[in-house]
Amino acid sequence: MPAPILVDLKFNPDTVERILKTAFLDRGSVNVADPETRSRDLSGLDYALLWKPDADLFSRAPNLKVIFSGGAGVDSFMNLPGLPDVPIVRFVDHSLTTRMSEWVVMQCLMHQRGQSEHDRLQRRREWGRDVAPEASELTVGVMGLGVLGQDAVKKLKIMGFNVIGWSRTAKQIDGIETFDAGGLDAFLSKTDILVGLLPLTPETTKFYNTALFSRLRQGGALQKPVFINAGRGRSQVEADIVSAIETGMLGGASLDVFEVEPLPSDSPLWDLPNVFITPHDAASSEENALFRHVERQIARFERGEPLQYVVDRGRGY
Amino acid sequence: MPAPILVDLKFNPDTVERILKTAFLDRGSVNVADPETRSRDLSGLDYALLWKPDADLFSRAPNLKVIFSGGAGVDSFMNLPGLPDVPIVRFVDHSLTTRMSEWVVMQCLMHQRGQSEHDRLQRRREWGRDVAPEASELTVGVMGLGVLGQDAVKKLKIMGFNVIGWSRTAKQIDGIETFDAGGLDAFLSKTDILVGLLPLTPETTKFYNTALFSRLRQGGALQKPVFINAGRGRSQVEADIVSAIETGMLGGASLDVFEVEPLPSDSPLWDLPNVFITPHDAASSEENALFRHVERQIARFERGEPLQYVVDRGRGY
Repeated sequence: MPAPILVDLKFNPDTVERILKTAFLDRGSVNVADPETRSRDLSGLDYALLWKPDADLFSRAPNLKVIFSGGAGVDSFMNLPGLPDVPIVRFVDHSLTTRMSEWVVMQCLMHQRGQSEHDRLQRRREWGRDVAPEASELTVGVMGLGVLGQDAVKKLKIMGFNVIGWSRTAKQIDGIETFDAGGLDAFLSKTDILVGLLPLTPETTKFYNTALFSRLRQGGALQKPVFINAGRGRSQVEADIVSAIETGMLGGASLDVFEVEPLPSDSPLWDLPNVFITPHDAASSEENALFRHVERQIARFERGEPLQYVVDRGRGY
Repeated sequence: MPAPILVDLKFNPDTVERILKTAFLDRGSVNVADPETRSRDLSGLDYALLWKPDADLFSRAPNLKVIFSGGAGVDSFMNLPGLPDVPIVRFVDHSLTTRMSEWVVMQCLMHQRGQSEHDRLQRRREWGRDVAPEASELTVGVMGLGVLGQDAVKKLKIMGFNVIGWSRTAKQIDGIETFDAGGLDAFLSKTDILVGLLPLTPETTKFYNTALFSRLRQGGALQKPVFINAGRGRSQVEADIVSAIETGMLGGASLDVFEVEPLPSDSPLWDLPNVFITPHDAASSEENALFRHVERQIARFERGEPLQYVVDRGRGY
């Protein structure tokens, strides 16, 4: 029997424990959260499935052959000591992708159609007709054109938005104007609603800040630009979001990710006007889908086929 | 010079007056809202563009050849005395259609993803992770499969919802299960989110009532069904919506239309849980688009080509 899979997923521990019971039946699993594993020798294990793992994980399991991330990003363990030089596989899943697009499209529509103002009037029992611009009058600029970004772009376009895309290295997408690192200014100056779907890397840390917001289009059909982030919280400077909303540099925001999670209850973000807060649930990893994905990738690896969704260490994602 | 077009549109009067100045330049227009037309002889006019016209309009203009509605429906004048037996043309417009789909998709997503609960938690500055079902776990049942319904069906499906459709007479739509009058029970029993886009006719008056809500699926992925109406307010029984929400027969609603508009400030609908109210602005007729549509149809009519979007008097829409 092959060695079990090492699991260290800081998700809901009960859910992980429950779903592990019926996953990886051919090889079993070792769940780091289980007290019985505390003194167990992990040096013989080949595969690890990780999300925010313990700091000593790589020293306890020094012979891993492949590391699987429990999410679309890998920033939760890329800086841990002892990270071995083996393939790191991101979680890419149809369900994760469609859920993210649901959230992105809903947030763009809520800003376009003035949901905050409708909600305010409803609470006052007031019938106030407000003519919102059409989707086609707004340009949504999507930053990050991986699997998630490309799906969001396609669906936003079908809903009628004018859509443009940005990625560090140029990408071609049918029917969409795209920009790369050198085109950042041109991209931002056309953007009414900025959708951030970038991975967290040294380059994208504190990337969404006052300097960036100030380059977005002012005076479009919503008057002021809107910032939407479902990538990583540490890519944004929350003090800058707060001041940009307060000074009118931004007209609103939708945030699913935060510098510190859970978002502290004293954060000023909670009750800024036209800001929608969701608790990092835009597209959470569904454990069953995650475990199936890991099984599929291990099967490929053991048949000698190339792994999919392998992280480029140089880029960090 | 041909006779001017008779206009009686109870929209925003300033907007109508302003935009009429640059419309119908080849023949001009007679705006009933203009005090100078009060004593004018309208008997020589051929075309009328109407939305909630004066009750004596048809007696003042008895020789009309074509009547154009200012909206997708025609119920605002079908019962006025003296309605002549001439073609009645509905307003069908790309902009009207895409705006309606924006609203429908946004409302479905807000119910699917628990926007009310997210909003409640945000107001309490609480980080409460709530696992919403995926769009694919929900069946949206769209009633009314005309131009608006078909566009909504297509976009809901692309967003991942399971979509079924109902129309009085059977319609075939690729990839969608459809039902007709005889299949109403089967349709309702599969529906988690009911989207009403029906025209107002004697048959659809008071159609959305307790008896109908009780046949929707209970125990789906949202637990309780949701009612969404962007058709006509007089198709719904608001007292029944209120009691269905209060008893838990319905889990929520989104309403853009009401029995009486503006919705009176003492209506209990305003602050029912998980009910979104919008002031009949899901897809308002944009005057420029409306006037261009009327010009195109008159040009067809005068070239001897068939008019489009003509109402079937027998069906009433």
